[in-house]
Amino acid sequence: MKHLLSVADLDLDAINEIMRLTDQFVEVSERPIPRVPALRGRTVVSLFYEESTRTRLSFETAAKRLSADTMNFSVSTSSAKKGESLRDTVQTIEAMGVDVIVVRHSSAGVPWQVASWVDAAVVNAGDGEHEHPTQALLDCYTIRQQRGTLEGLRIAIVGDVGHSRVARSDVHAFTTMGADVTLVAPPTLLPASLEGWPVAVSNDLDDVLPKTDVVYLLRMQLERQREALLPSLREYTARYGLTRDRARLLADDAVVMHPGPMNRGVEIAAEVANRPNSVITKQVANGVAVRMGVLFLLAGANPREPAAGDANG
Amino acid sequence: MKHLLSVADLDLDAINEIMRLTDQFVEVSERPIPRVPALRGRTVVSLFYEESTRTRLSFETAAKRLSADTMNFSVSTSSAKKGESLRDTVQTIEAMGVDVIVVRHSSAGVPWQVASWVDAAVVNAGDGEHEHPTQALLDCYTIRQQRGTLEGLRIAIVGDVGHSRVARSDVHAFTTMGADVTLVAPPTLLPASLEGWPVAVSNDLDDVLPKTDVVYLLRMQLERQREALLPSLREYTARYGLTRDRARLLADDAVVMHPGPMNRGVEIAAEVANRPNSVITKQVANGVAVRMGVLFLLAGANPREPAAGDANG
Amino acid sequence: MKHLLSVADLDLDAINEIMRLTDQFVEVSERPIPRVPALRGRTVVSLFYEESTRTRLSFETAAKRLSADTMNFSVSTSSAKKGESLRDTVQTIEAMGVDVIVVRHSSAGVPWQVASWVDAAVVNAGDGEHEHPTQALLDCYTIRQQRGTLEGLRIAIVGDVGHSRVARSDVHAFTTMGADVTLVAPPTLLPASLEGWPVAVSNDLDDVLPKTDVVYLLRMQLERQREALLPSLREYTARYGLTRDRARLLADDAVVMHPGPMNRGVEIAAEVANRPNSVITKQVANGVAVRMGVLFLLAGANPREPAAGDANG
Repeated sequence: MKHLLSVADLDLDAINEIMRLTDQFVEVSERPIPRVPALRGRTVVSLFYEESTRTRLSFETAAKRLSADTMNFSVSTSSAKKGESLRDTVQTIEAMGVDVIVVRHSSAGVPWQVASWVDAAVVNAGDGEHEHPTQALLDCYTIRQQRGTLEGLRIAIVGDVGHSRVARSDVHAFTTMGADVTLVAPPTLLPASLEGWPVAVSNDLDDVLPKTDVVYLLRMQLERQREALLPSLREYTARYGLTRDRARLLADDAVVMHPGPMNRGVEIAAEVANRPNSVITKQVANGVAVRMGVLFLLAGANPREPAAGDANG
Repeated sequence: MKHLLSVADLDLDAINEIMRLTDQFVEVSERPIPRVPALRGRTVVSLFYEESTRTRLSFETAAKRLSADTMNFSVSTSSAKKGESLRDTVQTIEAMGVDVIVVRHSSAGVPWQVASWVDAAVVNAGDGEHEHPTQALLDCYTIRQQRGTLEGLRIAIVGDVGHSRVARSDVHAFTTMGADVTLVAPPTLLPASLEGWPVAVSNDLDDVLPKTDVVYLLRMQLERQREALLPSLREYTARYGLTRDRARLLADDAVVMHPGPMNRGVEIAAEVANRPNSVITKQVANGVAVRMGVLFLLAGANPREPAAGDANG
Repeated sequence: MKHLLSVADLDLDAINEIMRLTDQFVEVSERPIPRVPALRGRTVVSLFYEESTRTRLSFETAAKRLSADTMNFSVSTSSAKKGESLRDTVQTIEAMGVDVIVVRHSSAGVPWQVASWVDAAVVNAGDGEHEHPTQALLDCYTIRQQRGTLEGLRIAIVGDVGHSRVARSDVHAFTTMGADVTLVAPPTLLPASLEGWPVAVSNDLDDVLPKTDVVYLLRMQLERQREALLPSLREYTARYGLTRDRARLLADDAVVMHPGPMNRGVEIAAEVANRPNSVITKQVANGVAVRMGVLFLLAGANPREPAAGDANG
């Protein structure tokens, strides 16, 4: 594996390898000193053209636990504002000596462009409405942690599927792992075409919930005027929100997930987010370990890797 | 000590313990390599809903000298802008594996809320107009360094007492340490009620200065339209500023303090800030050592502490 | 060497010493673990009153490769916005215990002021339209790397010389190293007086290029309304841009340089920036090694330097 751009590049074996690595890094994360020297001397840069403190800190924490150095190239303060091209920015960063570039951008496909320009490994940390592969991997890991396997599980993904890179990556990862996925959304929030998506579709959440092992609520991106696609936000919540009443339709061991940040009271009721089988903070914790696995896979066997550790690093 | 939320939680013994720890960390700070492995493997996150580079860097420097990792969760770029609740932000941060959360917020009481939600230790780095306990501790340490003790010292706190978390915390700490405190301010800048404050009050600075061992000038927060509470800024300076002429009323060994950043020419004349017994930069230097003491107390005996150091950390 | 404020403070021996140190740090940068313990325990702070992610990251990367700690005091979020004077900000930073202050400011002369106030070493990372000495040093190093020496080389500096601190520093460094420098610009973009500049001047780029060993294109700072000084940007490019056609006038081994960020299509054509003898990304890579050399010279023999390394640092 040279880059991590899309979940579609990962077959079942590749995902399982990352799951096994994540098991190890979850163990590392629970140590008194949660740090291993695996990436000592490597530099991981976050190149975020869309700000996301939570994703950036998750990658930075992962990099530090592997003893890598981190650099943060946030676009809001960077040369991009001075009209520099993306390519020149990326080549400048690489010239300073980086091993992994973690890129987030509002345009689909940018991580592929970046990968074509550099020798460094590239991780897609979200490109437009397209893909967010590490989110899908941490979601797989969290479900596997709760239920042992994804094989045969019934997973409902609820909400703004059409604009969601999380949904796009999750569908691929969950079905590769053997789950049955049902999308639940009003027609205006579904993708224009679902051809080739190995999923069922429903617009009746009440009907789907009793038959569901995992319900995955997508964030309603209110900052992007999604309301225009809906009669009203209140009606959305009434029909597609996981309200307290509706949550009673779930089996006792059904798992509730959300990629964060949550709009409590919109896609998920406050009480539901706090129920025992809600694993939303576990997703965050697993995110660090999954990203350790990904960074280790991409940079751990790099030719710059020395034969032995060096306490002076 | 599980958290540091308020000076009111600290009795004389507790403050003295922090003073003794600070003595040690002042010594560490003067070493060629000012670093000890005490908090290796711990993570200290600064969660600042009000920006303050000086306070944030002081905590970060303290954390690094203890070999802790640091994370910076600045609200201006965070999920808070996407409507995430404070509680969800805090729980997300904790899920990434942090040991200490240093929180600053414009609303009084937020650090207590944060502490109620997490297992991590919480330090109040300023909440509204309420408290700023590490400032009070570094002020105590600086006075003790200059004068040996606070017992029996006469300390004047001058300026916008009513809106100052520094004044609130200092009054408690100074009086706990045995000092006599006089507040000097125009009536409009005093708190609405001083019931329970163990202080004297004056509006005649010229009368107070000759009888004062320490004069502590508060910052006039010009960015918050304090002028509305004053006839004019010029008149404030004329009556309550420590001008060059007025500073002649001070005893030779009287100590001049200010929490910074100073408005030279408003609450303090430029020449006065530079006089020998002005210890304003010493306050900054001591701030790092005091915060090392606080972080060590909160995180040093954590169950994640290993039995022995690890040079590979 | 106590500070690095101006190239004018460096004679030929001093520049050559930095070139030799840079050779060593280029070698360090190519190691599997590009890190030496030379500045362990030192703190390097970047105090940037003008944002420049590329320069700041270059210094930070250099500091980390020397095992120094780094602090970032960016003005946009700092006390400067609260009206604190530059001097108080600098003394506050120093009080926290820093060894090197890397300062960028829009006003010429600020680094000298800063140096007069502190015991820490000061590096000028760009002051107004005045100087940018580390840029000049990395440019010297890059030319020496390409051509063995600067002695007797013919170097053309093209573009907005009048407002360029890069040009000002480069002219001094290149001529100190024995090169012949020609400035090529429309009269409105030349300094008001060139008295004392040991350079030739031309406004005919086509005439100069065939006789040039190195062509150094300055950035047209479009964000600063330079267009007002030009008939039109298109005409500037037509007469002074290194277009594809014009690049054919260059000797095959002529070196093309630019300090970045580039305006491709304005001062340099996209294809020209990518030609084999264009060394623009090499300049970036060498920048890290040159800054390692400068930081080492300024802080490596500091009295806080311990006799021996310490793996626990």
